[in-house]
Amino acid sequence: MDPIKIGLLGLGTVGGGTVSVLTRNIDEIARRAGREIIISHAAAKDYNADAIEGLDKIGKITDDVFGVVNDPDVEIIIELIGGYTLAKELVLKSIENGKHVVTANKALIALHGNEIFSAAQEKGVTVAFEAAVAGGIPIIKAMREGLAANQIQWAAGIINGTGNFILSEMRDKGRNFDDVLEEAQALGYAEADPTFDVEGIDAAHKLTIIGSIAFGIPLQFDKTYTEGITQIEQQDVVNAAELGYRIKHLGITRKTDKGIELRVHPTLIPERRLIANVDGVMNAVLVYGDAVGPTLYYGAGAGAQPTASAIVADVVDVVRALTTDPENRVPHLAFQPDAMSDIPVLDIEEIETAYYLRLSAVDRPGVLANVTSILGASNISIEAIIQKPAIEGSSQVPVIFLTQRVQEKNMNEAIRNIEALDTISGQVVRIRVETLK
Amino acid sequence: MDPIKIGLLGLGTVGGGTVSVLTRNIDEIARRAGREIIISHAAAKDYNADAIEGLDKIGKITDDVFGVVNDPDVEIIIELIGGYTLAKELVLKSIENGKHVVTANKALIALHGNEIFSAAQEKGVTVAFEAAVAGGIPIIKAMREGLAANQIQWAAGIINGTGNFILSEMRDKGRNFDDVLEEAQALGYAEADPTFDVEGIDAAHKLTIIGSIAFGIPLQFDKTYTEGITQIEQQDVVNAAELGYRIKHLGITRKTDKGIELRVHPTLIPERRLIANVDGVMNAVLVYGDAVGPTLYYGAGAGAQPTASAIVADVVDVVRALTTDPENRVPHLAFQPDAMSDIPVLDIEEIETAYYLRLSAVDRPGVLANVTSILGASNISIEAIIQKPAIEGSSQVPVIFLTQRVQEKNMNEAIRNIEALDTISGQVVRIRVETLK
Repeated sequence: MDPIKIGLLGLGTVGGGTVSVLTRNIDEIARRAGREIIISHAAAKDYNADAIEGLDKIGKITDDVFGVVNDPDVEIIIELIGGYTLAKELVLKSIENGKHVVTANKALIALHGNEIFSAAQEKGVTVAFEAAVAGGIPIIKAMREGLAANQIQWAAGIINGTGNFILSEMRDKGRNFDDVLEEAQALGYAEADPTFDVEGIDAAHKLTIIGSIAFGIPLQFDKTYTEGITQIEQQDVVNAAELGYRIKHLGITRKTDKGIELRVHPTLIPERRLIANVDGVMNAVLVYGDAVGPTLYYGAGAGAQPTASAIVADVVDVVRALTTDPENRVPHLAFQPDAMSDIPVLDIEEIETAYYLRLSAVDRPGVLANVTSILGASNISIEAIIQKPAIEGSSQVPVIFLTQRVQEKNMNEAIRNIEALDTISGQVVRIRVETLK
Repeated sequence: MDPIKIGLLGLGTVGGGTVSVLTRNIDEIARRAGREIIISHAAAKDYNADAIEGLDKIGKITDDVFGVVNDPDVEIIIELIGGYTLAKELVLKSIENGKHVVTANKALIALHGNEIFSAAQEKGVTVAFEAAVAGGIPIIKAMREGLAANQIQWAAGIINGTGNFILSEMRDKGRNFDDVLEEAQALGYAEADPTFDVEGIDAAHKLTIIGSIAFGIPLQFDKTYTEGITQIEQQDVVNAAELGYRIKHLGITRKTDKGIELRVHPTLIPERRLIANVDGVMNAVLVYGDAVGPTLYYGAGAGAQPTASAIVADVVDVVRALTTDPENRVPHLAFQPDAMSDIPVLDIEEIETAYYLRLSAVDRPGVLANVTSILGASNISIEAIIQKPAIEGSSQVPVIFLTQRVQEKNMNEAIRNIEALDTISGQVVRIRVETLK
C-alpha cells in the first residue's frame, strides 16, 4: 500500500518536533498503523532548518500554506501555525477539500471548535486535537473513549506547565512569583508575553475542551471563569502548607444539579492527593466517573516532542481508520500481526538493576570487609551501607547494602558467595531497586 | 437504528457490575456510541439476583452459555466467567460465530491470547480486553493508541491492588505481612487462596500483556519472571524509608539491546516519584516513550464498577466501529452531534467551593469577632483560623480563614462586608479550596 501523505503547516517548535518524531520512528509507527506515513508537503514562512531533525525527508517545503491545503495528493493536514484567523481559514479549507485535520491549536478549538466540527461532520472528515489539551497526555482519548461507560461527575487538571512550574518553585524554594517567572522565561517555559499562561487563558482554552468532552455540551470559552496565579504570594504558599495543602493552578469542571461549572483558578488541594504532588512543568488531569471512580493521567503538557507524540497519535488514528478493516482498526497487540517482533525475552539472569541487600552478620571486625570484597569481585559498586543495631537476644546485626546497577547474574554469584561466609547467617534478602527515570 | 445486542457470560461480581453500569448509564452511553446497547442474553450457573442492580432489564437469563454464544441475535459476547478452559472454548466459539468478544480475563489473554487473536484476525472480529489490565484505567488504549508515535522504552506498573494494599499498610501502620493479608481477605480485597495476588501471578499475567503491547512481541507468560511479596518484612519497609525509598510490587518491562525484560517483583522506588505515592488498592502504570517521556495512568485496578467501566468502554469501541462512519468513529466532542446537551454553564457566583481567606487586620480585641459574625451572616462555616505574627513595622496581622463549602455569591457578599470594616486594610485574598474527592 502506498504511504499516506501528510501536509504539515508550520515548522516552529512543535512542527519541528513532529517532523523529528514522524521520521525517526517511521518504522515503528508503520508497524502500528499498517501503513507508512510520510510528510509529502510542508509549508512555513520561515524556519530554522538546522534545528529540525529529519527535515531532508520532507517531500516539498514551500511558503504557500494554501498550496498544501489544496494539493490533491495530501490526505491529512497537520495545522501547527497557531492563532485564530489564518489557522481557522486553513482548517475549514482543508475540511472543504475532504482532508482530515490534526491540530494542536487549543485556542482555535476552544473558540471556533463548534463551527469546525460541524463542518467536518458534514464532510465526513475528522478533526483531531489530542495535542491541544495537556500535550503528550492522551487525555482526550481517555475521556472520549476510555471512560465512555461513565457519567463523568467532575474533572480537575493542572493543564498549564508554566503556571505549575512557578507555583512549584515558590513552594520548594521559597521564591517569589516575579523572580520565578523571570527564570521560566529564561528557560523558555514561559513566553516573553506570559499573559496567556499566568492569567489562566491557556488553561481556560483547555478546560473549555475538557468540559465539553466530559458532559457533551458545546464549547463555551466565553463562559469559562478564568483567574490566573499573579495574585499568589509566597506567604499564601507557606500558609497553605501549614494547613496541609498545596496551591495548584487548576481547571475544574463539574456537573451539578444547576448546571456545569467551568472554572480556572489557583486552588488549595490536600497535600496527600496524588495531583498535589505533580510538580514542575508536568501536567495531570484527574477525572471522576461514576463507575470507575477517580482516574489520573500524568505527563508532559508541552514541549516539541511530547506535543508531537499526541499529534502523531492522532495521525495514526486517522490512518488506522482509513487503512485497516473497520473492525480491526487497532491491532490486538498494538502492532499489525505481520509486523510482530521476535526480539527475545531475557532470562532474569540477564537483566540489569540496582539492589537492596539485607544480611545478618556476626558483629565483629572484618565481616563487612569480606562482604564488600565479594561484591567488588563481582563488579558490584556499593551506593550505601547501613549497619543496624543488633536484634535483641541475638549476636547478629542486620546490615543493609544499596548497590549500583549490575547484571543479575553477577548479583546471584555474589549472594552465593556471601551466603557461604560463616560470619553470615541465613539467606541474603535481595530487593531490586529502580529509579524509574 | 436497533439496539445492539450483548450476550453476557457470567453474573459474578464483575458481571453484576457490568449489568449495573450498562443499565444505569444506558442513555449517556447511547449518546456517546450512537446506538443503544442492551444485554439481550445472560448466562450464569448461579448468581445472586438481589445483588445485581438492573438485572430485570436483561432480555433472557439462562444457564446455557453455549446457547448464548450460538444465538444469531447476539452481536457481542462479554466473557466474565474466568478460568482458562471453558472460557477459551467459549471465546473461540464466539469468534467462529463471527461475534466480537470483550473479556476481563487476564489469565486467558496472557496464556492463550496469541491463538485467540489469530483466530479473531482471520475472522475479522475484535477481541477487546481493556479490563484485563489495571481494571478501570484505560491503559491498553493509552499504549496501543495514545502513545502510537513512540518507541516505548519501558513501562512499570503497580498492577495488583491486593499486593499494593498490603505493602501500603505495612508502611503506613507498621504492620506485618500476615496480619495485613488477613485483613485484606476479610475486606474482600484478597481471595481465600491469595496465591495469585501475593505470589505475583496475577501481576505477571497483566505484565505479559503490557510487554507485548509495548514492544510488539507475542505473549510469553512462561518467560515472565515472577516474584511475590511474601518475603517482604516490616524491617525492609522501614529500611527502605530510611534510605528515601518505598517498596512497591511492580511489573517492569524494558527494551534493551539484548532483548526484552519482563519481570514482576518487589521494588524500591525513590519516594518522590509519583508512582511511589500510589497507595492502598489503587493501581498505576508508568510508561516511558521516546517522544513523550514519562506518562502515568492511575485508577482503581479492580472492583465491580471500575472493571465494568473498562468492559463497557470496549463495548462502546466495538459499537462505534460497527455503527458510525469509519471516519467519524469517535464524535469530536465525545457525544454524537445530535445528542449534545444544552445544560447551562454556571456563572462563577453560582458555584460552590470551600475557601482560604487571608486578611490584614488591626491587632486589637473584637476584630476577629466582627469578621466571624460577617461570615456567619452569609451562612459561611469556619473550618480553621490562624492568626499570624504581625509583619515587621506594621500594626497589621495577617489572619487566615479556612471555610467550609458555600456558594460563591455568599462569599462575595461576605468579602465586601469584611473589606468595608475599618479594622481591615486592603483587599481580602481569596483562594478556593477543593478536596477532589
